[in-house]
Amino acid sequence: MTGPTVRTVGLLGAGVIGGGWAARFVLNGIDVRVYDPDPDAPRKVAEMLDNARHAQGRLTLAPLPREGSLAFVEDVEAAVAGADFVQESAPERVEVKQELLATAAAAAGPEVVLASSTSGLRPSLLQASMPSPERLTVGHPFNPVYLLPLVELCGGTRTAPETIERAAEVYRSVGMHPLTVRTEIDGFIADRLLESLWREALWLVAEGTATVEEVDDAIRYGPGLRWSVMGTFLTYRIAGGEAGIRDFMAQFGPALEWPWSRLTDVPELTDELLATIERQSDAQAAGRSVRELERLRDDCLVDVLQALRAQDVGAGATLGAWETALLGRAAPADDTATPLRLHETSIRPAWIDYNGHATESSYLRMAGDATDALLRLIGVDADYVAAGGSYYTVETHICHLRQATAGERVHVTTQVLGADEKRLHVFHRVLRSEDEAPLATVEQMLLHVDADAGRAAPAGADVLAHVLALADAHRSLEQPDRAGRRIEMPDRARQPLG
Amino acid sequence: MTGPTVRTVGLLGAGVIGGGWAARFVLNGIDVRVYDPDPDAPRKVAEMLDNARHAQGRLTLAPLPREGSLAFVEDVEAAVAGADFVQESAPERVEVKQELLATAAAAAGPEVVLASSTSGLRPSLLQASMPSPERLTVGHPFNPVYLLPLVELCGGTRTAPETIERAAEVYRSVGMHPLTVRTEIDGFIADRLLESLWREALWLVAEGTATVEEVDDAIRYGPGLRWSVMGTFLTYRIAGGEAGIRDFMAQFGPALEWPWSRLTDVPELTDELLATIERQSDAQAAGRSVRELERLRDDCLVDVLQALRAQDVGAGATLGAWETALLGRAAPADDTATPLRLHETSIRPAWIDYNGHATESSYLRMAGDATDALLRLIGVDADYVAAGGSYYTVETHICHLRQATAGERVHVTTQVLGADEKRLHVFHRVLRSEDEAPLATVEQMLLHVDADAGRAAPAGADVLAHVLALADAHRSLEQPDRAGRRIEMPDRARQPLG
Repeated sequence: MTGPTVRTVGLLGAGVIGGGWAARFVLNGIDVRVYDPDPDAPRKVAEMLDNARHAQGRLTLAPLPREGSLAFVEDVEAAVAGADFVQESAPERVEVKQELLATAAAAAGPEVVLASSTSGLRPSLLQASMPSPERLTVGHPFNPVYLLPLVELCGGTRTAPETIERAAEVYRSVGMHPLTVRTEIDGFIADRLLESLWREALWLVAEGTATVEEVDDAIRYGPGLRWSVMGTFLTYRIAGGEAGIRDFMAQFGPALEWPWSRLTDVPELTDELLATIERQSDAQAAGRSVRELERLRDDCLVDVLQALRAQDVGAGATLGAWETALLGRAAPADDTATPLRLHETSIRPAWIDYNGHATESSYLRMAGDATDALLRLIGVDADYVAAGGSYYTVETHICHLRQATAGERVHVTTQVLGADEKRLHVFHRVLRSEDEAPLATVEQMLLHVDADAGRAAPAGADVLAHVLALADAHRSLEQPDRAGRRIEMPDRARQPLG
Repeated sequence: MTGPTVRTVGLLGAGVIGGGWAARFVLNGIDVRVYDPDPDAPRKVAEMLDNARHAQGRLTLAPLPREGSLAFVEDVEAAVAGADFVQESAPERVEVKQELLATAAAAAGPEVVLASSTSGLRPSLLQASMPSPERLTVGHPFNPVYLLPLVELCGGTRTAPETIERAAEVYRSVGMHPLTVRTEIDGFIADRLLESLWREALWLVAEGTATVEEVDDAIRYGPGLRWSVMGTFLTYRIAGGEAGIRDFMAQFGPALEWPWSRLTDVPELTDELLATIERQSDAQAAGRSVRELERLRDDCLVDVLQALRAQDVGAGATLGAWETALLGRAAPADDTATPLRLHETSIRPAWIDYNGHATESSYLRMAGDATDALLRLIGVDADYVAAGGSYYTVETHICHLRQATAGERVHVTTQVLGADEKRLHVFHRVLRSEDEAPLATVEQMLLHVDADAGRAAPAGADVLAHVLALADAHRSLEQPDRAGRRIEMPDRARQPLG
């Protein structure tokens, strides 16, 4: 994967889904041209883009490409003109979508794939009255489109296989996980599952068994946590214990005959039921606006995605692959005249202590990561370590200057204060990236060792040359105020210490 | 909340759910007596407890209580004898549960609440033939029980309200989130939602539309991520955009009439369908054992829970409340004539770096845990912190003396070198427990702060008295050689530093 395979995307419709597409494409460096008759669309999309920027900024430390442009145009033809790819996200009315897609297909270049964001309408229906219907596929995303990787692909009877392949390539290049639905079916896969759960949820509220908040709590405190990690079948395989899925099916198969789900009928959306849902939903939102709720949801989703990335599981693996692609595209920096900037990260949720701040050892961890990066820079690589050479930290002095909270982006700068054939004396600054405010300083003395012999030993010639050159280059830098400090109580400040 | 409100729990049944209960109770310091006729139960529970210990160790930095005991007994009466609370987790067969609960109720003390883990059987049915049926409630947990906070409470027609209250109190004290189901209904709330989705998933596989892996991917790459954060109603409220839930209902209400879910029938579990599910599930597991999958799931869930804790949302808020309670209840040691021994641990596998040794920041983490224990000892408890008072570390000096490897037992001793109304100067030694060999020394200066005002402030009178008494008691101890060190290159050893 070498980057987006499109330069310009035409978007038809810019509601919650279309606006989410706009954000995902723009933040991946793609120019976007949007048609939406709603005069408020530019404002709404701008607000979503703001939320998306905030989320992406927290999501990854990989260098994001320069943002693509965002233009609102007057008609379908102008949105499609010059576009390499078209994404339609109009309301779920089949005649509206049919007309939009027919107009777009007539105006688009002959190679351009058109994808519909429909939640469940069959593509065969959407392509019915369209010129070159072989270029139409469903590309069904999930809200928020700029964070959730899933996109379902589904072709109609007249869709060409290359259309699906092209769409998958485009979506993968912007960090998504395409899932091809092999049989055309109403609602595809995910929305059939969602719709089943949703219909049951409506029954629970319609019959007064539970409020909307109780339904939501029954999900998010329990099974919903699992669903972010594993789907329903793998979850149940584990629930079967050592005997596995067969045992689970034998144990819970009988429940399929029991009235554990309505699954027989659909509640009617009476005015009374709608009023109940609205009243309960307002209570649940507790005065928070949709934008505030979106921000909260996104902050959580970012942290969940990062949590899964650490385990290389599911959506976290997708995130990791996208970051690797981004990193592969970035030009390496090279600069020895200033303190080195070798490590960037964000404050992980796991590092937060009961005061709500990053725990003290996390600063040493970040500094240690910067030291590791420095060692790689001077040639202490896997081969060097395998041959027995390494630097061990023998002494560390930390000054804590400011607190940091979860999600804040930070970076570490590293200054070499001195070196000889065995020693390497470094000074790290852990800085909040937003405003370069220092959070901590970490001074360290490292000793080169022969790990096999278990004692200090001179560094190898190449490594030593690199170390001494760095120390020389950094000699002109200002000595940090906090270097060489000792810890002492004020009243003993003047007493010599052994 | 001041800690577990039970000392001994009797467990009936120790399969995946019963074993999960055993782990949750034992790790919260509660003694557990288990009855299960399966001769393999002790081995299986021991394995689950290992997984649970690993998960809890990663889950929180709060000090866990000393583990409760775990005993396997020969019959129901022995499990229930002396228990303050009984949890039944037998297979989902109504006559089995009825008999177990009747026997247990006859043997249990008169005040003891009995809870059934049933996934969906009505409590009125379970209490039908039981003495004192007012003491029976459903307490339905979710796998893994030692990590997921949700537990559904549901009483039958003869259940006393105090029974529900008592069970909620017990569950809350072990870090769970009780959700009371106000109307008795088959499947309660969560399992009705789960069962609807599950039935639709079985249809998709039965008709060959999707494999079990495709179904799972349709969840975990998309909607499942949202469900860990918010339930279905709040998610859809946001999906409605600025117009809110009414707009969403208007937009997607018509879909309720469309065939987006089977919702009409239940697939028959034919041998052929069972074989298909098993074959696809085996492919999805790709040779990983249930224990391996459990570990992977738990690692992810821990990270997801921590992610949500950082945002104080849902299950993360439950985790935070439990940690606060753990911090509030840590038992004070009392010993002032020698360096304090306040923290013991073992080197965790997650702390090992690429050299095969404990990473440098793990020493600071262990010292930080000792500092936290010291602070609790001197009266900086949850109430004190809530009132704005706390000590923050401002400076740390570490000397690394020896390497440690995974699994080694270590402990930390703490010597108070000095104190005044704002400062606390401590010296930790991290020692290998086997031979008391020093691994590292960690000297720290802490400053008392008014966290609300964001600045240094004198400690409260009781805390200060305790600190000064400790400093006084430790004055007679030998000053550590390594106290007051600064880092310097040998050739600059004699140069004064600013």
